Order: sequence, then C-alpha cells, then structure tokens
Amino acid sequence: MPANPCIGVMIGDPAGIGPEVCVRALASGRPQARGRIVLIGSAEVLRRAAGLTGVDLPVTTVSSPEEAALIQGIAVIDPGAEVGAAFEIGRSSAESGRAAKAWIDRAEQLSKDERLDGWIMAPVDTGSMRMAGVLQELDDLQPQGTFMFRMSGPLRVVPIAEHLPMRAVAASVTAERISHVARMTRDHLIRWGMASPRLSVAALNPHGMFEEDRDIIAPAVAALRAEGLDIAGPVSPDAVFRQCIEGRYDAVISMYHDQGQIALKTAAFAGACTVYLGLPYVQLSVPHGTAFDIAGKGVAQPDSMIAAMTTALSLAGGVAFLDEATE
Amino acid sequence: MPANPCIGVMIGDPAGIGPEVCVRALASGRPQARGRIVLIGSAEVLRRAAGLTGVDLPVTTVSSPEEAALIQGIAVIDPGAEVGAAFEIGRSSAESGRAAKAWIDRAEQLSKDERLDGWIMAPVDTGSMRMAGVLQELDDLQPQGTFMFRMSGPLRVVPIAEHLPMRAVAASVTAERISHVARMTRDHLIRWGMASPRLSVAALNPHGMFEEDRDIIAPAVAALRAEGLDIAGPVSPDAVFRQCIEGRYDAVISMYHDQGQIALKTAAFAGACTVYLGLPYVQLSVPHGTAFDIAGKGVAQPDSMIAAMTTALSLAGGVAFLDEATE
Repeated sequence: MPANPCIGVMIGDPAGIGPEVCVRALASGRPQARGRIVLIGSAEVLRRAAGLTGVDLPVTTVSSPEEAALIQGIAVIDPGAEVGAAFEIGRSSAESGRAAKAWIDRAEQLSKDERLDGWIMAPVDTGSMRMAGVLQELDDLQPQGTFMFRMSGPLRVVPIAEHLPMRAVAASVTAERISHVARMTRDHLIRWGMASPRLSVAALNPHGMFEEDRDIIAPAVAALRAEGLDIAGPVSPDAVFRQCIEGRYDAVISMYHDQGQIALKTAAFAGACTVYLGLPYVQLSVPHGTAFDIAGKGVAQPDSMIAAMTTALSLAGGVAFLDEATE
Repeated sequence: MPANPCIGVMIGDPAGIGPEVCVRALASGRPQARGRIVLIGSAEVLRRAAGLTGVDLPVTTVSSPEEAALIQGIAVIDPGAEVGAAFEIGRSSAESGRAAKAWIDRAEQLSKDERLDGWIMAPVDTGSMRMAGVLQELDDLQPQGTFMFRMSGPLRVVPIAEHLPMRAVAASVTAERISHVARMTRDHLIRWGMASPRLSVAALNPHGMFEEDRDIIAPAVAALRAEGLDIAGPVSPDAVFRQCIEGRYDAVISMYHDQGQIALKTAAFAGACTVYLGLPYVQLSVPHGTAFDIAGKGVAQPDSMIAAMTTALSLAGGVAFLDEATE
C-alpha cells in the first residue's frame, strides 16, 4: 500500500457542479492531509469554477501525476478536449459529453497503468454522454465485472445485481453470485485495512420466509461460513440494515438494488460514496448528480466531494478502517 | 367523532412483555390525557405485571367499557380465559394462545358493536396461537380486506400487499389495487383530522425505469389526480421515503412489503405503530414482539405502548393531525 497515495478526480460534466465542488474541496485542505489529488479535466473550466466560488488557489496544468506532486495549488491533467462556444452551464450538450468521456478514459488509463492509485468520478450527465454517442445505458458507466460497494456512515451495502426489473430479481439470486460477492467484499475490506470483516447476507423475501431464502441463500451462507468467512444470514431485509447501522456487521450483501438503496438513502448519513469492487485500484463516485439548477452559481456544497477524496485516499492507503477506529 | 374516545387494549400473550408495558403505559398517565383506556385480558396476569414493574395502581375487573369510565386505576375486562398451572413466563403454550385469541375476539366484538372506538393488540406469540390451533398463518391476524398503515415519526407507509414472495410482487401491481389503497388512505387521513392529504406512490422498479412503472403505475396515478387526489408518482423507491420524512408527502403508497418496511425500520423513529385501513373503528398494533427473553423481569420499556395508546385515542377522536400541527 502506498504511504502517500495519489488519486485522480475526473471533474464531472463541465456544465454541472463537478468543477465547483472539486476546487472547493481542495480549498478546504482536508483531502491533502491524506495524500495527493490531481484533477483531470479542463483547466479553463476549473479556473472559471475557482472564480465563481472565490477559491484563490492557482490552477496549474501538469502532464502527469508525478509532475502534480511538484506544484502548489490545484494540479490538473487536461487532455485537451476543449469546451467551446456552444457550451452552456446548466445544459446537456454533446460537447460536454465528449469532454467527460475523454476525461474518464484518461483517469481510467492512468489507474490501469498504476500511475494513479485510483480515481473519482464527479457527476456526469448521461444526457450529454448520450448526445455525444459515448453512452448507451446508465449501467455502461460501471466497469465490467465489478460490484458497487456503497458506504454511508456505518452502513455499507453491496448488492448482487444493479438495475434489474423486480420481476427478474428472484431468478438472479444464485449461490454462485452470493459467494462471489461475499468473498470479494471480504477481500476488499481486508485490503482497505479491516482485520476481520463481519458480513451479513439479506434475505430476498419478507422476514426471509420463502423458498429462495431457505433453499438458496441459507445453504450459500452456510458454505461460506464453512470456508472461514464471518458471515450471518439470511437476515430479514427489514432488520439487517438497522443492525449494520448499530454495528453488528461491517457490510451487508443485498439481493437487489432497491433493498440496499432504500436503506442507504433513508438513513442518509453525510459523506456517502460508492466504490467499485473488483478492480486493482480504487474507483469511487459521489452520490449526488450534476445539479444543473444550481451549477455556475458558486453555491454547491463540497462535503460529498471532500468525503469522496478523503475516503479514496484512505482506501488506497489501506488505512480506511484504522482511521475509523482511532478518530 | 367522540370527544372522549375509549380504546380497548388486548394485553398480548400473557407470557410476553405485553402485560408489563400495558400497566407501565397507564402508570405514566399520558394516554389518559387523550381519552379512556380499558384493558382486555387476565386481571390476575395484570396484577402480577403491576407487582413486577412497581406500578401501584389498583387493577379492577369491569364488565363493560361504560363501567370502566367509573373506576380509578386500571380497568380490565376479563373474559375469564384463565392462565393455569402449565403457564410459564417467557414460553409459548397452547394455554396462552387460547387466552390471547379469546381476548382478541372480545376486543373485536366490542369495537364492532361500537362500545369501543377501537382497540390495540399488544404483542401476541404466533407459536402459542398455532399450538392452540387458533392461527394458521401470520397474515390471519390481519382483518379481511384491510391494508396496513404504518406510522413512524413523519414517515407513513401503506403497502398494496403484505407477505408475498418477491417473485410474485410484479404481478401483484395493478391499477385497481393502487387506486383502492390510495383512496382508502386519503379517506382515513381526512377522517383522522388531516385537511388535505398529500400522497405519493412509489415506483416498483429501480429509478422507476421499467415497464410496470410506465404502463401501470403512471396511468393509475394520473387517473387518481384527474379524480381530485393530491398524489405524486411513480417516485423512485430510493427517494420517496426520504422525501416523505422531509415533509413533501403525508403518506407513501408502497408496492411491496419490504419496500416500505426497510425505510421504516432503518429510519426507526420512536413511537412507531400500525393501523388497519378499511375498518369503521381504529385498530392498532405495536411494532415490537413479545420479547420472551426479558418478559417477567419488569424491565420492558412502555414507550411504544404509550405511543400506540395516545395515537389510537387521537385517531379515534379525529384529532391526530391537528395535534401534530400544534404540539
């Protein structure tokens, strides 16, 4: 694990609040206490965002993460996907979508090449990306073969599937999928600094009282326990998230998207973010969107971005859960 | 609406914490500020519960709700289903199950006869009731044709179905059912004192992005709006409960049991309770169980029962939401 990790932050759709929350997060000085941050996007857009938000750090273009380490203020890798005359803050456009895609690709490549310890995606606009022809489905933004680990205060949830229609959910619950996600979650938590992760698996059905709970989930959990995992389940879906909040487990494996999302968004702890499981580097996204209605006004709050930056640096450094115990 | 409503409280399984929380709730004096409470159960069990909890109110057997109005202390209608030698606190037994059933029947009959304005069911043990042969399924405790209105702080949820397996959920979503539950919810909220109820309908699928959301729920909501209901939807399931907590709606119509239960139990506001929609009288239950592990120790907290008693009296008096605005 790197002692002084470096995380790239793709600044999000240039017409949204991404650029503003990036510069404000860096102006807070808090992420820099955990490691290094380099932005990836348009230097011009960031200078304007700094002006709008009253951030007086200089924005300097660098050619690599290594070079970023040498400069003061805000370092940006600018792949040169320029935002031209047609561009307007608060509006979707093919131009913004193309720029966002170029920045995502650069962040991903630098991470794959191990020149970054990971990257954060600020909010992109799927409308812009569709106009640019660089995105078909919402789920295309998720790297192949990964699972989404969502963190919100003490509540951490990994669903075994994402945007399935409810009519397809029951058939998607298999012992293979549960075991795969449970092992992956255990491995990542250990990599991130947790000594002995305690997991639980949500039942599929109300009170865990039907066929799939008994015939698929219960045997899968028993087999995982036999192989040495600290894992409970199937636990009633309406109890398991509250139990996680109260500290009984370190993470919950959920059976469908909304099962966990309803708990996460209802509890709504500050500083929520999403990490992808299944990559050799850290990749996060923030839980809010582009907020086109307030973009360009300099009022967007950077708290979620500060949390994403500090979390990414802590995860990349393998100290995320050491911090939790000592802070 | 009665100015001084009278609510019966069936004391729950005699081997659980029901009798203890009943006497402690009455000892607090808080329910009596809103109306009259008469217990329905075993006077002997209640006297023992009073002893265990240090409550020094006298327990007096009465033959009717009208007679209860005349006495000081704790009034109990005791149908004489005696709990004998085989009975043990903290254990399921056919004897307890038979007694519980007799008390439920009496509470229901007095409510149907309009001698009570409604009744509360303290926690019963389905094991005891099955041993007594008076219950087949958990859902048999729910009166025919009713829907469960769950209240927890500002969050109020009515699911269109209860304990269905997830694989049967999508097919259970019909325009008829949504319209029926929405109208019933609106009518009850008005009866309970709310001038203009604002409802919303949860989508079935993640982000409301699939077939049923578009083809069934959206037209059903549009038709309800056309008939004059103040109703939004389909709203993304991971957003709608948080929006209700923040005051945007007075109640949410949910598409399946866990959709609302996960939100309710994760938010976990104090004083949650469940009311049945579709009855001419008020019928509530408390959200906790018999807690056999602590029964008989005098330590069970009465907060949920106090909330259930005060809520039932406020609903029966048609002043529940007037109180909310002025307290």
